[in-house]
Amino acid sequence: MNQIELMKQLHISSDKKIVLLVIDGLGGLPDTDGKTELEAANIPNMDKLAADSIVGLSTPITPGITPGSGPGHLGLFGYDPLEHQIGRGVLEALGIGLSITQDSLAARGNFCTLDPKTKAITDRRAGRISTEECARLVNKLKPIKISGVDITVEAVKDYRFALILNGKGLEQGLSETDPQKTGLQPLSVQALRKEAKKSADILNEWLEKAFAILMDEPKANGCTLRGIAKDPGLPTFSEVYGLKSCAIATYPMYKGLAKLVGMEILDAGDTIASELETLKKSWKDFDFFFVHIKKTDSAGEDGDFMRKVKVIEEVDSIIPGIMSLKPDVLVITGDHSTPAAMKSHSWHELPLLLYADNIRKDRVAEFGERACMSGGLGHMRHLDIMPLAMAHADKLTKYGA
Amino acid sequence: MNQIELMKQLHISSDKKIVLLVIDGLGGLPDTDGKTELEAANIPNMDKLAADSIVGLSTPITPGITPGSGPGHLGLFGYDPLEHQIGRGVLEALGIGLSITQDSLAARGNFCTLDPKTKAITDRRAGRISTEECARLVNKLKPIKISGVDITVEAVKDYRFALILNGKGLEQGLSETDPQKTGLQPLSVQALRKEAKKSADILNEWLEKAFAILMDEPKANGCTLRGIAKDPGLPTFSEVYGLKSCAIATYPMYKGLAKLVGMEILDAGDTIASELETLKKSWKDFDFFFVHIKKTDSAGEDGDFMRKVKVIEEVDSIIPGIMSLKPDVLVITGDHSTPAAMKSHSWHELPLLLYADNIRKDRVAEFGERACMSGGLGHMRHLDIMPLAMAHADKLTKYGA
Repeated sequence: MNQIELMKQLHISSDKKIVLLVIDGLGGLPDTDGKTELEAANIPNMDKLAADSIVGLSTPITPGITPGSGPGHLGLFGYDPLEHQIGRGVLEALGIGLSITQDSLAARGNFCTLDPKTKAITDRRAGRISTEECARLVNKLKPIKISGVDITVEAVKDYRFALILNGKGLEQGLSETDPQKTGLQPLSVQALRKEAKKSADILNEWLEKAFAILMDEPKANGCTLRGIAKDPGLPTFSEVYGLKSCAIATYPMYKGLAKLVGMEILDAGDTIASELETLKKSWKDFDFFFVHIKKTDSAGEDGDFMRKVKVIEEVDSIIPGIMSLKPDVLVITGDHSTPAAMKSHSWHELPLLLYADNIRKDRVAEFGERACMSGGLGHMRHLDIMPLAMAHADKLTKYGA
Repeated sequence: MNQIELMKQLHISSDKKIVLLVIDGLGGLPDTDGKTELEAANIPNMDKLAADSIVGLSTPITPGITPGSGPGHLGLFGYDPLEHQIGRGVLEALGIGLSITQDSLAARGNFCTLDPKTKAITDRRAGRISTEECARLVNKLKPIKISGVDITVEAVKDYRFALILNGKGLEQGLSETDPQKTGLQPLSVQALRKEAKKSADILNEWLEKAFAILMDEPKANGCTLRGIAKDPGLPTFSEVYGLKSCAIATYPMYKGLAKLVGMEILDAGDTIASELETLKKSWKDFDFFFVHIKKTDSAGEDGDFMRKVKVIEEVDSIIPGIMSLKPDVLVITGDHSTPAAMKSHSWHELPLLLYADNIRKDRVAEFGERACMSGGLGHMRHLDIMPLAMAHADKLTKYGA
């Protein structure tokens, strides 16, 4: 029996509330003075909480595997990321609040620059055009019609847009059209499974019409499609855990991920402070709160050690506000590490903190990578976090007699 | 290859002896002064043994999952509890010392109250009648005969009884008859697989006769059947490990569980002291000894912290007696935690101690939950204990060339 089945079978209701605070890219690596971002940060509230908690380290997927945002969060939500995969097109669409159904096929689009004569790509990102420019171009593409499908196309950010087809019989198993380097023409969509032939034809027809419309554009006279996929059809948090769950996030991608597992998406504003306000306002309405902090990851990706430290300190400042709500279970971790030293996601384990009744407190009184190495939770996988949170919230019954 | 197959393939014989000391419900949670039951207990012998051993923490199933006694022990015996399930009817029968064979079909019965006119259930537990009343009613049902099967029916406790059919061609895959709420009539048994049709017919015939007999009872004028199951047909300890194994236990349920994996059940009396005597007397006859201590769990279930401490101290007092036999491998742990603070089984990891030659002693010289967090075995699963014990007893050969 896999974990999802086990959770479906064992979950029961209780009036306890769980907060999962995900600090994106939390894990780091030591700077020249030997401290990671989290260790360098002045976080009196999280350190105090660590003393009242049990801590450890969590591996997003398996050792050595660096996850994207999708797999990182699927693990945290208790869905095995090696079994369940989410296409980037779906993530991109959900990320800007578009709705995806079982009849949808979604792709991520990139505007690109083509050599007018050879049609070879000269810039895969169309000179990183602005989001406004992207919206203008997308408006030109909206009138494209193809019989048998409804088409939605929306600007995302910079040179990126989302394309969604809605109709019966659309299938995934389709190749991408970005040749991955300049000097080559965009590819056509190929059906990798014979069931996807109709979908490939429709997408190629759409591309042909789009290229005709964009022909005279100076920068974005072409586009490519990537990550063409359907809704992965994940069982919802309500089905798996019996939870009334919500997501408090500032970035579209994370709202989209939460939506895929059936969480209600709350308007959380743009700041860590506004996320706390949203948590407070909605406290009575849900029993599971996914709170997502984005800017730690952005700072890590930029290689900005001190900015990441500052964001962690800002997160620390809302801990008293969270604790004032008296959550029954509070989990703090990240979806993956983003060490400033690497300027990218990494495979390193995440510091993990579990605060609840009925824990066995360990002897660790500090929240940091090396402190967590001595924690009572030891080394876990992201996948194990939800069952532990459920157990500590009295939401799981006994397995077997 | 699963673990059972691996053990079948790799086991070899040696003259070394293994003792698996299972202290039921051993794991606990801190009392007001911050110590668990095991930490509060005065256990000089186990602490001394810990100094000469390697310790760690073991998860019965997976993190967050609270096991019943069946899955807890299956894990300790090296059978994956998520693959092998023991029906409640079988456990209930084993729990009162009834014998189950490959020809048995066992059900748990509940007496219930029916509305005399509509036959709808008005109380699913017949007003929680006493065990004595249950025995009186069961005696009325004993004369029921059905051709082709031998029938055993015995009172268990309160409103619960065990029903066992013995005969050729009985199959499991049968629905339960408890509609799970009042206001509905008991269901009939349905065959969920066509092979189980004959068994469904027999059980429905038995129910019809039982209802006729119980008709005039004021409270228990009906009954329902649940957890209808056969012996799970587990491969035996002899097949899997090549071990000549025995069980030293005072409670029927644990003797029954041991019997399911082919252990010889010894008469161990009623006390921890008599269990030690049985171990000593049978020392030359077996190479694997499953020794089960029940009363830690009972005290935990009753929420009696100090009684659980006392039972642990009593177990400590027999350690020198066990060590005087010079066991080659001694494992001490529990099937699951039963913190007095929770008055129930829980998901918490179990302290685990492995004493043997060829161990890497760690620096822990204390047997307790938090001490074990620093142990050299780290965090394990119950499933991993038997292979480790086998290895340290020189009973496993190399895997692969």
